[in-house]
Amino acid sequence: MNTPSHSSGLQLRSTITSGGQLVLDLVPVETPAPAADEVVVRVEAAPLNPSDIGLLFGAADLASVQCSGTPQSPIVTATVPQGAMRSMAARLDQSMPVGNEGAGVVIAAGSSDAAQALLGKKVAVLAGAMYSQYRCVKVEQCLLLPPDASVAEGASSFVNPLTALGMVQTMRREGHKALVHTAAASNLGQMLNRICLKDGIALVNIVRKPEQVEVLRKQGAVHICSTASPTFMEDLTQALVATGATIAFDAIGGGKLAGQILTCMERAISSSAKEYSRYGSTTHKQVYIYGGLDMGPTEIQRNFGMTWGMGGWLLFPFLQSIGPEAVQTLKQRVARELKTTFASSYTRVVSLAEALQPEAIAIYGQRSTGAKYLINPNL
Amino acid sequence: MNTPSHSSGLQLRSTITSGGQLVLDLVPVETPAPAADEVVVRVEAAPLNPSDIGLLFGAADLASVQCSGTPQSPIVTATVPQGAMRSMAARLDQSMPVGNEGAGVVIAAGSSDAAQALLGKKVAVLAGAMYSQYRCVKVEQCLLLPPDASVAEGASSFVNPLTALGMVQTMRREGHKALVHTAAASNLGQMLNRICLKDGIALVNIVRKPEQVEVLRKQGAVHICSTASPTFMEDLTQALVATGATIAFDAIGGGKLAGQILTCMERAISSSAKEYSRYGSTTHKQVYIYGGLDMGPTEIQRNFGMTWGMGGWLLFPFLQSIGPEAVQTLKQRVARELKTTFASSYTRVVSLAEALQPEAIAIYGQRSTGAKYLINPNL
Repeated sequence: MNTPSHSSGLQLRSTITSGGQLVLDLVPVETPAPAADEVVVRVEAAPLNPSDIGLLFGAADLASVQCSGTPQSPIVTATVPQGAMRSMAARLDQSMPVGNEGAGVVIAAGSSDAAQALLGKKVAVLAGAMYSQYRCVKVEQCLLLPPDASVAEGASSFVNPLTALGMVQTMRREGHKALVHTAAASNLGQMLNRICLKDGIALVNIVRKPEQVEVLRKQGAVHICSTASPTFMEDLTQALVATGATIAFDAIGGGKLAGQILTCMERAISSSAKEYSRYGSTTHKQVYIYGGLDMGPTEIQRNFGMTWGMGGWLLFPFLQSIGPEAVQTLKQRVARELKTTFASSYTRVVSLAEALQPEAIAIYGQRSTGAKYLINPNL
Repeated sequence: MNTPSHSSGLQLRSTITSGGQLVLDLVPVETPAPAADEVVVRVEAAPLNPSDIGLLFGAADLASVQCSGTPQSPIVTATVPQGAMRSMAARLDQSMPVGNEGAGVVIAAGSSDAAQALLGKKVAVLAGAMYSQYRCVKVEQCLLLPPDASVAEGASSFVNPLTALGMVQTMRREGHKALVHTAAASNLGQMLNRICLKDGIALVNIVRKPEQVEVLRKQGAVHICSTASPTFMEDLTQALVATGATIAFDAIGGGKLAGQILTCMERAISSSAKEYSRYGSTTHKQVYIYGGLDMGPTEIQRNFGMTWGMGGWLLFPFLQSIGPEAVQTLKQRVARELKTTFASSYTRVVSLAEALQPEAIAIYGQRSTGAKYLINPNL
């Protein structure tokens, strides 16, 4: 067994106090010696995914962010609105580590062959608490990166790639032949577009800004509808007629979009209906909400018959439902196509301390396409 | 083969014209001679269920109802708002018969033994077009009524009883142990309450008016929550803690109630949670919308984690999914318990012509609990 070369490192923590304050700080944590099937990773790249940002800030009001402490050891505070405190009840006064995934170099390994085989290698890790300088993790939580991939290129090997692959697999498993995706110009959306182009699956991309139409068009996307267009509903219906898509994955959640997708699906289906049915078409139409870019209420105008479903979709229950072997197959595809299909891009690389600067939070906190940050905890 | 004793009879028809007018009238239709496996029924009782009222008036504005014609042959007209015409496209200018179910006496029968066995008997029928004086239907669409049941008692043998039984069966099939029902003081709701009391299933009844609490209380209901109460959310959460219900059937559809049920389910589940999960509990929470008493938008405040579903639920696809043998078992139970568990009550019995009087429409058109009409086409 190798002894870790660093016995402790900094870790980013998020706490929401019973008093209604969010506190973010950097705390030194011990790095445990690895057990037989564990390795210690020096984390050099961890993305700020929307799901991480959700845990990081909780229900705090980002307009109230204040920074104190020192440049090396900043402390961020913000106010959690009273009405949102109930949803935070289960995490109150707990100092929580953040960061679902990341990548780095294995600097110590346990005694097992599998652990020893990773020593000195670049690995992607899905283990939580990745906004840390060092992480002791199980070998099975690691994915060996291809030799020509950088640690930054491997940082987002799990959440976005497996989510995009999971959407395609869910579409197939539930008997649909094409799919719809919202916030389609995101890193995840661009990845899904590349998967669908490669695998010959029809995809309807919904974006919110006209300039995002061009981003996707240049990447070969065929069906792109902008909610900013006055002809959005007609455009979407036409794309649904052309593709036959009857399942959608929605990252936005709030507002009217999820319901509008069902409305346009029903219009597309009934455009070829032979007779009137008072309960609408008998084709099942499904929208899965997998994100909450708009945390406001979801408003559904039920003008699409009775054969529909809406619900939450999450990566981890999906992975559990397909079983470890199928997950392994998906991960191997990600490793093989890491620099092509599953490539990610970032606006900026920041250190742990820089990630706690109000200027940085004001940008990546928007969780908007084109404002994605990567943390290098060892910068 | 017997010749029908009446060669024609009146039938209620609903038409929505391309010009945006609803027209209801009574038209004489020929009664066909029954084929071997058919019988002719003299219809004497057919309920005005919410689903019938939906087909009868379509998207017409009930405030614009006008009556012309003669007392024996009235003609009702009403205006369909321009914005709602798209949803009516598939039925425009079609003269549609109405009435899912009813009951009557078999006055002619085809040559088969099964048909002959029904001659002179009282039967319940699920065949559509039941707002008719005579209906020629297949034997398999009939349910022989118990000798001590009146035709009026048999009029609602299918839609409400099979829907209530279908809810309980759906609850079991999808792995839930208790259920929630809205508009719970309706005929259907009272029936569901009797089924649950008899079968030992915990039921949470949601009503909209304080006086409906008493109606259900007198019938032995244990958990009754009124949306009119200022403590509705707390009451519902407590009832969900007590019952463990994680599936709901909602007749209302519009407004906030469907989402509030998910919110309270999540609160009830997480009241015993051991640790914080940023995605909420992992217990699946489901609301099925099976009616549209409120046709306005459904507004969902997504504060109940990611493990949830909402969707449409309809009787006929459910019956198809369980297969003919299981359906037969359900129907036999309905016949056995017609005067107890599956008893219905009506505010008033009207003739076909009386059902087209503006005063009658103003009452049963509300589709509200305690304003349920029964049509006797041979009155």
